[in-house]
Amino acid sequence: MAERDAIGVPMTVGPAPPSSPVRGLTLDALVRQHARSRPDALAAAGEHTTAGWSQLAERVEQVSGALAAAGVGPGDRVVWLGQGSDRVLELLLGCARRRAILCPGNWRLAPPEVAFLVDDLEPVLVFTQRREVGDRIHAGVAAARHRPRVLVHDDDTGARLDAYEDWVARAGRGGDEERPEPDDPVVAFATAAVDGRPAAACLSHRALIAQALLMGPWMGVGPEHRFLAAGPLFHVGVWMEAWATFVAGGATVFARRNDGAALCRLIERHRCTGGYLFGPMVEGIVEANADGRFDLSSLRGRRGHPVFDAWVGEDPSPWGRRPGGYGQTELTGMATFNLLAAPGEQGSHGRPSPLLEVRVVDPEGGEAPVGDTGEIVARGLTVTEGYWRRPERNAARTAGGWWHTGDLGRYERDGTFSFVGPRTRMLKTGAENVYPAEVEAVLRAHPAVADAVVFGVPDDRFVQRVVALVEPRAGTEPPSVAELLGHCRERLAGYKCPREVTVVSGLPRAADGRVDRDEVDRRHGGGGYPGGQVRSV
Amino acid sequence: MAERDAIGVPMTVGPAPPSSPVRGLTLDALVRQHARSRPDALAAAGEHTTAGWSQLAERVEQVSGALAAAGVGPGDRVVWLGQGSDRVLELLLGCARRRAILCPGNWRLAPPEVAFLVDDLEPVLVFTQRREVGDRIHAGVAAARHRPRVLVHDDDTGARLDAYEDWVARAGRGGDEERPEPDDPVVAFATAAVDGRPAAACLSHRALIAQALLMGPWMGVGPEHRFLAAGPLFHVGVWMEAWATFVAGGATVFARRNDGAALCRLIERHRCTGGYLFGPMVEGIVEANADGRFDLSSLRGRRGHPVFDAWVGEDPSPWGRRPGGYGQTELTGMATFNLLAAPGEQGSHGRPSPLLEVRVVDPEGGEAPVGDTGEIVARGLTVTEGYWRRPERNAARTAGGWWHTGDLGRYERDGTFSFVGPRTRMLKTGAENVYPAEVEAVLRAHPAVADAVVFGVPDDRFVQRVVALVEPRAGTEPPSVAELLGHCRERLAGYKCPREVTVVSGLPRAADGRVDRDEVDRRHGGGGYPGGQVRSV
Repeated sequence: MAERDAIGVPMTVGPAPPSSPVRGLTLDALVRQHARSRPDALAAAGEHTTAGWSQLAERVEQVSGALAAAGVGPGDRVVWLGQGSDRVLELLLGCARRRAILCPGNWRLAPPEVAFLVDDLEPVLVFTQRREVGDRIHAGVAAARHRPRVLVHDDDTGARLDAYEDWVARAGRGGDEERPEPDDPVVAFATAAVDGRPAAACLSHRALIAQALLMGPWMGVGPEHRFLAAGPLFHVGVWMEAWATFVAGGATVFARRNDGAALCRLIERHRCTGGYLFGPMVEGIVEANADGRFDLSSLRGRRGHPVFDAWVGEDPSPWGRRPGGYGQTELTGMATFNLLAAPGEQGSHGRPSPLLEVRVVDPEGGEAPVGDTGEIVARGLTVTEGYWRRPERNAARTAGGWWHTGDLGRYERDGTFSFVGPRTRMLKTGAENVYPAEVEAVLRAHPAVADAVVFGVPDDRFVQRVVALVEPRAGTEPPSVAELLGHCRERLAGYKCPREVTVVSGLPRAADGRVDRDEVDRRHGGGGYPGGQVRSV
Repeated sequence: MAERDAIGVPMTVGPAPPSSPVRGLTLDALVRQHARSRPDALAAAGEHTTAGWSQLAERVEQVSGALAAAGVGPGDRVVWLGQGSDRVLELLLGCARRRAILCPGNWRLAPPEVAFLVDDLEPVLVFTQRREVGDRIHAGVAAARHRPRVLVHDDDTGARLDAYEDWVARAGRGGDEERPEPDDPVVAFATAAVDGRPAAACLSHRALIAQALLMGPWMGVGPEHRFLAAGPLFHVGVWMEAWATFVAGGATVFARRNDGAALCRLIERHRCTGGYLFGPMVEGIVEANADGRFDLSSLRGRRGHPVFDAWVGEDPSPWGRRPGGYGQTELTGMATFNLLAAPGEQGSHGRPSPLLEVRVVDPEGGEAPVGDTGEIVARGLTVTEGYWRRPERNAARTAGGWWHTGDLGRYERDGTFSFVGPRTRMLKTGAENVYPAEVEAVLRAHPAVADAVVFGVPDDRFVQRVVALVEPRAGTEPPSVAELLGHCRERLAGYKCPREVTVVSGLPRAADGRVDRDEVDRRHGGGGYPGGQVRSV
């Protein structure tokens, strides 16, 4: 609780002021309600565990008690740095009950990135695991100045004091003396590393529940839905359908990571009806099920892979037929929906969500005429509560009573919407956003590097490849490519590391001395940026 | 604006405290957004007028300007005492923009009931019409102590100064200096006359939008939906689908009243896809279209009438297949949904809305065990902001942080829900609730009446018939039945008036002297109460 005082007053992101308890709705209330309405129906499952709604409600009481006993209270942060697990759901709901914020971090982070995350969020607790990621995460936490308590969720042998089940069992029920508010931030995702470091965008109960209510029916999600949450839990993407499933009273099945055989087992065992499955996961499933020994026929949603598509049913939902649109983490995911436009209409990204008012503004902040490109600003139910401990950036992003997305778009004459691209240059590799500024900062920190530019090269499989040009520091031995790649790998998650590094005598520069990114792209095959176009800033 | 000071501080229902403008969503914001996203699509239509979304947005600017010029500001009440009209929608949205509350009153009210409504709500403006209802409403307003300005919406000849279109045109655009809040009460419906007088239940943007987001997809309502709002606008019933249509960006078509030919013309002209149509309206349509000259094939939703059902398509939506549930005005309509239970499950009223937490409580306020009947209490997004100017009742109804519905229900073992009946005796005639206390109070006010009891007798066509027993005052000439019926008709809307009155020498009474309503029912054929059972209080 002392953490809260340390960050200063006024907090720009923290527990919401009290509203009428009669008119609020929070995630923890939904667990209690589902426990009344469908006590025995499956609520959540993981690799080894399953829980019906009344069991899940009971678990949330226990986890909330354990969080309270550990000192977690309103506005406190709790970090998850493990892979996929149904424990993330009970921790989210326990945090909701304690008015704390769960921050699911990327388990691929390099130790220095973990240290930054820990020092930025100053969590009371960090949850991690032994398998695959434990050593790296522990090294990162050890390198931080802030000292959270670390709990290991997949070591239930009793050998370690801070094993998860021990921790839950020892505290007993409780932790229910807080009154959660709909506007409490309840989850935070690292994003928007436009200045070289990610910031954690906080989302409230209000935003999650509204998005779930809107998207659930469009995704065909009802109480019978069984959603395979196979994607990374540190992205809002997989959560959109997970929250929709949760709010509707369906079941969410958590996969640990992309492992074809494990995914097949979960789909078959729980008769999953939907899943967050893209390219490499689909390929993994196809490989694991080459002999057809798993029955995947409960699954709906073809993925454009002939073998996979023959095993699963069609997804007849509006989202299944026309998925996608424009979105960002700070808007709880989708902000415009392709399914709100008919084929042949003008815009490339459908129409805005009815949860938002979306404007396109000119540099002076006035509404841009139809057909003109400008910054996308929005207000409404799914807007973030702000970035954790970034008061200046939050003030700038909410100037004039609108959330400034930092993205460019325009309205078309028929009322449809087109996303043009980020104002700030961003790359896309797989489902991950990579901010050149973050990678360049790491390269520039190498003693033999004077300057660096990172750009994206179109890639058939991963959208873009991360590529770097490096200008060596005058008077030093030019660094070797292997040296630079190793330097990056120690400090950055693998997906952010350049696939290619070229040492050049000088970077292309504009008249004002700044690196000319368009010229870099032209000379070195850059392109394929999100939104199809990029404006340099 | 002076009206607001007159009601005393603290107000229990009024404008919401300021929240972040970035995270709110209000009805007026949705009009602006639809004007961007679907400028030319039909938004609203009435008997003579149609408007696309950009036209409707412009009308709302004008109406808001006119309301501002008339002195309507935050927390003020505006009463509609006319029949169905698309002007109700633009007034609702104009009130939203001014942070005022639109109160659609029952145009069937007798003059003393109108006078009570006016003195209770103290509106700045009353809108009424010449046709059919004008004289009665004017007489009622004239009998009130409070003096609102009265505007006539269907007299645009210019002969009267206060004709609606003149009033709109003269003010010009504007009225946009208020910042509407999601928790502002924006509409109020008279209901719950349990103590002999109705109270106005206020509903917020938050409640309307949440209910619309939930029910729209279940009703198959999308941007292409064209909803015929043919039912009474003074009930939440017809509004549930109207708001769902509005939020989705579809079109709402307003009918003036139940007139078969007019309904057929509206359905054919606007290709209505859904309608709030029940018994007598369906019969009127069948009669008006006996020669099949109207094309009603756009309409979905059979009504159990073989002739009508042959003209319209099936409604394949979840709500169309399993409509209904338990609800009340104070919960923005539906609170449990039949469609959330499968055929064969135990409860009679489906499962609770995911917008609410619903408990059944024992007389001490504790949660009743599964299978036990108790009072239904709820909290969540669709709970009323309270009754206008009834602080004591509001405090009682929200005791302990839950909305006390005054209704009885229970959870079944499979998690389904059964509505048992009102705690307070209530009758049902057609779609209308009749509170015996209200009718009895009118009968007792007759100088020759000592006491009276009003009860319901099952009726094939109208659910129940209102029937009264009257005990004459000692020492006076017993009143004639005709005299008593006339006395009621002058003071009560027709549907509340007893169909039969019997003068008896003494009412059946319990040991404590109170009228024994169960004994009245037994002796005089009472029964058929809503929910199937009645507990006397």
